[in-house]
Amino acid sequence: MPSFTEQLRDSAGDQWYRVINHKFTIELANGSINKEVLKKYLIQDYRFLDAFVILLASTIAKCRCLEDRIQGCQFLGLITGKENTYFERSFEVLGCSNIEERMKIPNETVTTEFVQLMKTTANEGTLGEMLSVLVVAEWSYLSWGEKVLDKTNREGDFTTWEWVGEFIH
Amino acid sequence: MPSFTEQLRDSAGDQWYRVINHKFTIELANGSINKEVLKKYLIQDYRFLDAFVILLASTIAKCRCLEDRIQGCQFLGLITGKENTYFERSFEVLGCSNIEERMKIPNETVTTEFVQLMKTTANEGTLGEMLSVLVVAEWSYLSWGEKVLDKTNREGDFTTWEWVGEFIH
Repeated sequence: MPSFTEQLRDSAGDQWYRVINHKFTIELANGSINKEVLKKYLIQDYRFLDAFVILLASTIAKCRCLEDRIQGCQFLGLITGKENTYFERSFEVLGCSNIEERMKIPNETVTTEFVQLMKTTANEGTLGEMLSVLVVAEWSYLSWGEKVLDKTNREGDFTTWEWVGEFIH
Repeated sequence: MPSFTEQLRDSAGDQWYRVINHKFTIELANGSINKEVLKKYLIQDYRFLDAFVILLASTIAKCRCLEDRIQGCQFLGLITGKENTYFERSFEVLGCSNIEERMKIPNETVTTEFVQLMKTTANEGTLGEMLSVLVVAEWSYLSWGEKVLDKTNREGDFTTWEWVGEFIH
């Protein structure tokens, strides 16, 4: 009997499998990804971080008990930790470490929509709605990461394999 | 020129100095505290933790930028970390590790009021109000801790000196 969460995932149908079996994630793992594509992705992805922190913090505040909150607190400490310098180091290597220049690049529509979804859910959502957004984001990352982990090319640039490893460990 | 926060503290007048120069904190440091007093205190204090986590998480969600949030996230990760086992170990030593028995002990009025203040502020407060509650709580702990730190009796029981050290490091 699949869990409720698994039933919800299955009801997303093919869309879930397209997300976790994507040209982008395969090329990211084997290191063959075009660096301009990766750069474009990381610039947009980094713009989620603040909204993600808002959503996770709001979920922690809304959880039913301390035991549930602690998991979220530990994750929040981890993603905002000093050791989490992947973005900084990658922006350096990919030639987009100048914040002012980077800020001139407009959001993709999907970036604005995702940030908006996270902020609205954080402000107005029920606990179930908050968890839905968090779980879809993290579970899809985890699923594509697990799929490609043993195909990562560690000889290659850290900007590719380290991004895969981040979500598994 | 004192900072705005220092001005607010000074306007609390004598009350602030009575908090940070208390029989309780002096005896806690030198280890002479009556263990029944300490036990009573820790049982009540532990009941703040959940409300404190709610308030801190809500403050993180309400901060103005990611840079401000990160400080709170790291603190939240720290106070909910696995290494934070002082309460558990102390309850063991002080003979109140049985949760069901401990739960039978009613809240002190001040406990209920403080938990209520933190939860109400988390739910309905402005960022300034949230910060007021957090800063008074943490700054007063820090201030009495700094005052007694070099008077801690490390030969004594960890239940006394470790509680002082917790707030300084």
